[in-house]
Amino acid sequence: MENKNIPYKIYLEEHEMPNYWYNVRADMKKKPAPLMNPGTHQPMTAEDLAPVFCEELIKQELDNDTRYYPIPQEIRDFYKMYRPSPLVRAYCLEKKLGTPAKIYYKFEGNNTSGSHKLNSAIAQAYYAKKQGLKGVTTETGAGQWGTALSMACSYFDLDCKVYMVKISYEQKPFRREVMRTYGASVTPSPSNTTEVGKKILAEHPGTNGSLGCAISEAVEVAVSNPGYRYVLGSVLNQVLLHQSVIGVETKIALDKYGITPDIIIGCAGGGSNLGGLISPFMGEKLRGEKDYRIIAVEPASCPSFTRGVYAYDFCDTGMVCPLAKMYTLGSDFIPAPNHAGGLRYHGMSPVLSELYDEGMMEAVSVTQTSVFEAAEQFARVEGILPAPESSHAIRVAIDEALKCKETGEEKTIVFGLTGTGYFDLVAYEKFNNGEMSDYIPTDEELAKYRANLPKID
Amino acid sequence: MENKNIPYKIYLEEHEMPNYWYNVRADMKKKPAPLMNPGTHQPMTAEDLAPVFCEELIKQELDNDTRYYPIPQEIRDFYKMYRPSPLVRAYCLEKKLGTPAKIYYKFEGNNTSGSHKLNSAIAQAYYAKKQGLKGVTTETGAGQWGTALSMACSYFDLDCKVYMVKISYEQKPFRREVMRTYGASVTPSPSNTTEVGKKILAEHPGTNGSLGCAISEAVEVAVSNPGYRYVLGSVLNQVLLHQSVIGVETKIALDKYGITPDIIIGCAGGGSNLGGLISPFMGEKLRGEKDYRIIAVEPASCPSFTRGVYAYDFCDTGMVCPLAKMYTLGSDFIPAPNHAGGLRYHGMSPVLSELYDEGMMEAVSVTQTSVFEAAEQFARVEGILPAPESSHAIRVAIDEALKCKETGEEKTIVFGLTGTGYFDLVAYEKFNNGEMSDYIPTDEELAKYRANLPKID
Repeated sequence: MENKNIPYKIYLEEHEMPNYWYNVRADMKKKPAPLMNPGTHQPMTAEDLAPVFCEELIKQELDNDTRYYPIPQEIRDFYKMYRPSPLVRAYCLEKKLGTPAKIYYKFEGNNTSGSHKLNSAIAQAYYAKKQGLKGVTTETGAGQWGTALSMACSYFDLDCKVYMVKISYEQKPFRREVMRTYGASVTPSPSNTTEVGKKILAEHPGTNGSLGCAISEAVEVAVSNPGYRYVLGSVLNQVLLHQSVIGVETKIALDKYGITPDIIIGCAGGGSNLGGLISPFMGEKLRGEKDYRIIAVEPASCPSFTRGVYAYDFCDTGMVCPLAKMYTLGSDFIPAPNHAGGLRYHGMSPVLSELYDEGMMEAVSVTQTSVFEAAEQFARVEGILPAPESSHAIRVAIDEALKCKETGEEKTIVFGLTGTGYFDLVAYEKFNNGEMSDYIPTDEELAKYRANLPKID
Repeated sequence: MENKNIPYKIYLEEHEMPNYWYNVRADMKKKPAPLMNPGTHQPMTAEDLAPVFCEELIKQELDNDTRYYPIPQEIRDFYKMYRPSPLVRAYCLEKKLGTPAKIYYKFEGNNTSGSHKLNSAIAQAYYAKKQGLKGVTTETGAGQWGTALSMACSYFDLDCKVYMVKISYEQKPFRREVMRTYGASVTPSPSNTTEVGKKILAEHPGTNGSLGCAISEAVEVAVSNPGYRYVLGSVLNQVLLHQSVIGVETKIALDKYGITPDIIIGCAGGGSNLGGLISPFMGEKLRGEKDYRIIAVEPASCPSFTRGVYAYDFCDTGMVCPLAKMYTLGSDFIPAPNHAGGLRYHGMSPVLSELYDEGMMEAVSVTQTSVFEAAEQFARVEGILPAPESSHAIRVAIDEALKCKETGEEKTIVFGLTGTGYFDLVAYEKFNNGEMSDYIPTDEELAKYRANLPKID
């Protein structure tokens, strides 16, 4: 029974905060396809992965059975510094739209990394520290993940080496300075500090870099430096596990007020936020206890769900990583230069890919101009300046709320507001000046990238 | 009796949020000196002020007697979107410092304006709307106030004209774009859109602008356009009244857990945050019920409390505003070019000036390099990247906590963390590169500016 007195913002009290992560793989009858050794085409074992990832994280990566993972006390202490994140009732947006729908958003932007990425960064840094490592390496594109990881490493006194996509390094100097303030070293990628970087530079002089390329460099540095491992901010099963704190908190807050969502919406790049948000809800759906419409929103300029194929593919440009079965556009795919913000990865979380393939969730793609229109509308009434990534979810939440206006249905919509747009003002400026453009790749272009998929029997 | 189970962050519940502002002037035996007509040297009446300010705000400005001001429901509804702000126990900072002191900070940065300024912006926009005005004008320096006002005006559908100090307009294009996203027009000051701007440009071609100059332009536009009034983000009595929501919330949260602060610390530029934070505590102190050490922290490069004089002075460069009695460096004073962030006004709130003159509070000045050291130390353990302004308070809170470490005293320190530093990364970059410098004006320089104070009998 829905409680009538719902506050603008629901903050869990400290004792209500979750002490476990939710592993949705435990509820999946068909498990996500395993990571595969690109040479042998055999599933990667814990031993295979040990040079790259931390031990405890490999266990989490491979564990498809344990539903509830206790969150270590040290991580819960860190979570207390910026969590619980509020679940906000968008009263002002509802009023502005004139919709009978009830809209809620889980806001993950109230921390210095500006997004949900910190939830997994602190977990990965914790396990690295526990293993006695000296430091970790990673890649970052728009910079949210790198910032989050630099904060986490600073907290646990770990060295943090970030490979930042070159064009972002140049266009987002402020993100870089936040990372440096937290003590991280930041290298523009591709660079001359790695073999793979040198090779890419030789083949593509003047390249702007890409996520896939930065991943290759970060992995090389991790495996060739004793005491270092590589960490990743999305796509992987372990990341979705850590990000489930978003969904578990959301569910506790909704249950507290007797609210049952009809539709759950999240933006999807690699899938870390969406996967985290939906985990406990998807669990109920998979067990047949509840039904929810679950919608992934992706950019029309990087449409891995809606226009990709479900296949084994390389995770990185340099092909130094294991293969993953996922919805993919091909590992050479890079969004058009006018694409702003994140959500630019060529693939998608194997967990979400499998769930999407089974029809357990929907996906839609939206153009960035329509996304910024939604962002501006949201900012003006709800006060928060959203990240371009998050605004994909806003776009579809508004669209669904407007459908309710037509039909008169009082649906309850929950969406993930992953972060803030304070470091995306160049894109906002373009939008404010009416200079923002859209680009939708042609079928021919996509076919070209798809042709480079590895041939697996 | 102090409750032992104090959470990391104390969030008031919606029903605990204050429904009144606290007017500390009601507790002052000697009231702050009135604004004065520069021509007649008589106190400004409500009638005199009517062309410049909104009616209701003039009442608040002149009312030295009403202690509790009910907060209108419409403003409380807006407050619910980003308030209550958390009162955070700095457990991690305490541990890092190894101090027996207990440190709390009231964090006002969790909103898109990035600071406490929104508390007064929404109030001023509300009263403007209620009066049936078309819009408001204002100045902004670092951009926090302008951003806050643009958000508030967007919410109430008011036109918002911002005069932004020219050098900030050029160096902080992102702040400008946030304001534009909220629909404000932003003009670099001095500009050719006003008589006073033209005059200043003629006298000082190539000037970088100043707050005092931008104020003059904004006031001129307000008084010469029907349906417009001028609003200001600090210094004025009305602003301190609105900002008292910070202090009242802090007091409710502390009382809830049986905590009594020994020391209350805030940064001070025009005094809006400090005045708001201390209002209810200062009330107790003035009534002789409690004693607190209250410390204002200002930049060594703009030391109005510690090296200014208590005298009537112009509020703006163009001398179009009333005179205010305040601690001032002289209305021509502009901090050295290496001064980063806000806290650059030549004067100080008349309320705080009077309280300081009576010995009810202390003031210290700190150099900006020491401020950024404190900011970095704080960011690394508490996770929040603080604004340079706020970091002045952090500096002194750390200093006081370290004194406690020496003496073994378990003092309770509360400080105001006014905002985030996401738009101050140019300054952080300088600090990270070891290129930050300090400037302390010489006695001779200060004497030169002081010589231009108006002669009042």
